[in-house]
This record gives sequence, C-alpha cells and structure tokens, in this order.
Amino acid sequence: MRALYFDGEKIRLEPEYPFNRFDEAIVRVVYAGICGTDLEILRGYAGFSGVPGHEFVGVVEEAVDRSLVGRRVVGEINVGCGVCWMCVRGLERHCPNRTVLGIKGRDGAFAEYLRLPAKNLHTVPGDVGDIEAVFTEPLAAAYEILEQVKVDPGWRIAVVGDGRLANLIAQVLSTVVVGLRVFGKHAGKVGLLRELGVDAVVEVESEDLGGYDMVVEASGSVTGFARAVELVKPRGIVVMKSTVAAKHELNIAPLVVNEVSLVGSRCGPFKPALKALSKRLVNVSRLVDGIYGLEEYREAFKRAGEPETLKVLLKP
Amino acid sequence: MRALYFDGEKIRLEPEYPFNRFDEAIVRVVYAGICGTDLEILRGYAGFSGVPGHEFVGVVEEAVDRSLVGRRVVGEINVGCGVCWMCVRGLERHCPNRTVLGIKGRDGAFAEYLRLPAKNLHTVPGDVGDIEAVFTEPLAAAYEILEQVKVDPGWRIAVVGDGRLANLIAQVLSTVVVGLRVFGKHAGKVGLLRELGVDAVVEVESEDLGGYDMVVEASGSVTGFARAVELVKPRGIVVMKSTVAAKHELNIAPLVVNEVSLVGSRCGPFKPALKALSKRLVNVSRLVDGIYGLEEYREAFKRAGEPETLKVLLKP
Repeated sequence: MRALYFDGEKIRLEPEYPFNRFDEAIVRVVYAGICGTDLEILRGYAGFSGVPGHEFVGVVEEAVDRSLVGRRVVGEINVGCGVCWMCVRGLERHCPNRTVLGIKGRDGAFAEYLRLPAKNLHTVPGDVGDIEAVFTEPLAAAYEILEQVKVDPGWRIAVVGDGRLANLIAQVLSTVVVGLRVFGKHAGKVGLLRELGVDAVVEVESEDLGGYDMVVEASGSVTGFARAVELVKPRGIVVMKSTVAAKHELNIAPLVVNEVSLVGSRCGPFKPALKALSKRLVNVSRLVDGIYGLEEYREAFKRAGEPETLKVLLKP
Repeated sequence: MRALYFDGEKIRLEPEYPFNRFDEAIVRVVYAGICGTDLEILRGYAGFSGVPGHEFVGVVEEAVDRSLVGRRVVGEINVGCGVCWMCVRGLERHCPNRTVLGIKGRDGAFAEYLRLPAKNLHTVPGDVGDIEAVFTEPLAAAYEILEQVKVDPGWRIAVVGDGRLANLIAQVLSTVVVGLRVFGKHAGKVGLLRELGVDAVVEVESEDLGGYDMVVEASGSVTGFARAVELVKPRGIVVMKSTVAAKHELNIAPLVVNEVSLVGSRCGPFKPALKALSKRLVNVSRLVDGIYGLEEYREAFKRAGEPETLKVLLKP
C-alpha cells in the first residue's frame, strides 16, 4: 500500500509499503490529521521510524468481529500489553510496554491502511462528519483535563496558547466554566477564538497576574510556561498540555513557593469527545486550513508548521 | 539586645541590636533551630538581610492581650497584610505582601527577642518540652502535605532524602500509611530512621521504579528530583518539599508523559504539629545534634551544614 514512511531522518512516499496484518482490525484511512507531535517526530523526537500519524477517521476493512466491517471508526492510539497492572486498571495509555499509533513501535495513519486492536476502535455517530471525526483524538486530549482535575464551574481559567490543541481545550473548558480567557499570540487564531465565542486576548493585563484558579499551558513554549506561572493563583493548578515545552528544563521555584500543583496531561477519553462532536458542543470544522493527498505531503507538513495554521488533513 | 545580624553577605553577633516593638507581641527566644533555608539565606538566597531564624520556642514578654504574657509559645512565620483576598481566606502564608520571620522583611529568631502578631502565636502544651517545641514549625511543614493531598491509607509512599525535614515527613506520613519507604544517602541518618521504625534504604531496587503512588522530594537536590520521577507511578503525585531543588531547572518531560501531578508544598498548619508532639506520634528529640550559644554561631552553622547533621539549636 501507499504510505508516508519516516526513516528516522527523512520522510518519503513509499508506493508499496508492506502491511503486517496480525490479529487486529484493519482500517482504511479516510482522513488523517497532522498534529504538533507529528511535526516534532519529523524533527527526530522520540527516535521513531515508520509511518507517523495518529489522528484519523477510517472504515474497518477486516476484523475478527465481522460486525465491525464497514463501520466508520476513530481509534485510541495507545496499545497496552494487556497484562500489566496499568492495563488491568484500564490505563493502557500508561502501560510501560505500550506501542503508540504512529509514535512508538507501531505504524500510523499517514497511509492507506492502519491496524489497531478492535477494542481501540470507536464507531463514529452518524451525525458526525468525516472531517469532524478526525478531531476526536485531539478533542479527547482536551477532555483529559476534565478527567484529571475536578473543575469548579466558578473557577477563572486561563489557556495559554492559540494553536490547534489550545483552541479545542478552550472550547471544551468553556462548556464547564464561564470565566475562561485565552492568552494567544497570533492575530488570526485569536480572532477565530473570538468568533467561536471564546474570550481571547494577546496582552496580559496586570489584573490577570495571579488571577486564575487553573491555567492550561498549551503553547508548547518556555515563554508560555513562564506566562502560565505568572497567571496562576497561589495554591492553583497549572495543567501541562504539551510535551514540547516539557523537553526544556524549567524553573519551578515559584510553583513550590506558591504551592501550585502542576498536572501533566496527555491522551484522553474518546467517548466524551465523540459525544461533544455529536451534540455540537464544539466547532472543529473552522479549524481546517487545508486537505492534501499523501503525495502532497511536503506542502502539507510545510503548511501545518506555519504560525497561523490550525489543522491540516491528509487524504490517502 | 544580642542578635545574629546578616548584612546580606556576612553574619555577625551584634551586642546591641535595635529592637522595634510596634503593635506586636514580644517573645523572648528560648531555643531557635537552624534549618536548610537558613543556610541558604546565609549564601545570599532571597536577598534577605537582618536577623535570620524562623524555628523557635519562646516566652511572651509583652503583649496587648495581657493573658499571653508569660506563656510559652511557638509562632507561625508568615505575616500577611490582612486585607488581600488570600488573607481573607485565611491563607496569610500566600499573601503577596507578606513578611516572613527571618526570611523576608522581618527580623527572626537568632536573637534574644523577636516580635510577631499575637495571632501568629500558639501556646505550647505543658507536656511538650522546649526542645521538642522548636520542631513545631518544620513538623507543620510536614503536615502541610496532608493538608494538600488526600492520602489514601493503602498508598505506597516514598520519601527521597534523609535530612531534618525528610525525617519528620517520614514520621508524619507513617502515622497515616503502612507502605512507606525512605530513600536516603547517609548511613547514620538512614540508621536513625530505622531505629525510629521507618523502612529506610540507600539503594533503589528495580521493583521500586514506578512503584509509588506518592513520592515526596525532600532531598533538595537535582538527583533527588530525578529519583522521585523514577519512583512515582504513572498518574501518581510528586510532592516538592524543597525550595533548594526548585532553584535549578528541571526536566519535567517524564511527568507530562506519565501524567504525574507535581505539588509544591511549603509552610504548614501548627495545630496538628503541636498535637503530634503532645501525643508522642513523632520522635523529634533524637534529631538534635547540638545546642550552641549565639556567640558560638560559627560552629553552629558549620555543624548544621555537615552531611550527617540533622538539627542544631541556638540558645540565645
């Protein structure tokens, strides 16, 4: 099959990429999304080689459970060993021996087909379009915050960043609290957030400093982390929603003095994400900047890396 | 009065240090404890100048409320402005305009007398000795962990470090959970913990890695932080109990991937600390390595900084 193969240094289009079937469901990829982690992987992050891509919507072509065949699905990206104490607790996404679709030890979605265990797949409701469904995975990552933190509706919440994930996080948290403000950097992205009904600004006012019960760092930059620390109240919570910033070494002294809790947050639950798409609680289609064929991957990655771009899709 | 005065570079004994009385209670210092923060202050940390020292037991000499005079007291070290929203919530210790005894904008306990607002003082129960009472402040810092984290009695907890504070934290958490282990570095300190009935080791076994629901970093070193990250389970909690380590820049990438919560923890509540001393839930007298007069301060600080020393007291 055709697939984008990353050899650890360069990515190329392979016309005849071998496809190992094993005992897993085979999904024909309809759309795949490019996310910040993919761009990091292409710079050599995590030492991955293989087919990248972990955001997708597709149709099941083969499965042991025949009732799955023909279904439109999205898929959870972590595949646990199934026997360790994390897997037994239902936390496959923290299994120490896990593979991760397009990220670790497992070919991903920038190809015509991918394979995943059937239990990783979720059927997409009929009222959710293909392009919307691609957002299930990043939207689930936004919902993970609500899994980890008991958010009080009266809280003031700040989101630092205005990219793909920051946008989804702001929309998701806006369904829970009224007092939410996004601190962005790019005029176009901040403008879109405002059109979506989110209070988004570029400048930090003095009244914002130390004014937020919870701050979500979703900018992926060291300056974004510093801003999050400025914005959070003593005894407040900073949610780290980016592995990009986490690669840098950070000064956490102010967090200790102010007894701030720092919560690392990663992949999330698919069910509330699909429900939110079905109920139109969030608007994701406005985030799409372009759709490219696999053979146009160079333009697609270039576009995905531009400052004002939100989401670029590949259509294999 | 006689006081140890730190001019921002050097500490010296001042025979006639001026004492500002203001509208606060005046306490004659009976014993003062030297803690890691004091040693940091003498290295120029936090730009403090004045009389250091924040762990003390003393007797009230003067107070507007005459019933306080003659009482044996310990004192909370943070003095808030009294009007900001943190003070109004009873969190004076997070007041942005606070002074802190012997640490920030307020002379401390390495002197014959100190002053503090009467509401900062707690009467020491009769069954708690003077030397034990000096430990109230660091013991309160240990109890702060139980204020911030809802600890489950079934948890496995690790404490990294074997110093003054690590020892108290281990003793306090042992009153709540059975599965506690201290990872230390110094044979004598680890030995004392064992004598006190705490499971303490020097080596990390492979079964310890990723094996703890909560890890308290109390070593104050970058290697201690790295060890805490190794020991904590995915989705677990790392409590940062040291401002020393926090001055360094730390790599928190593994915390994001494993969705670990990092909780900064500082000063704590005096009431449970005094109660624990009164009920003999913890043994603090074994931690005292030496008692020195103010004029012996050079030897006292030298001794306090030695690797196997736990607690040195000054007797003004």
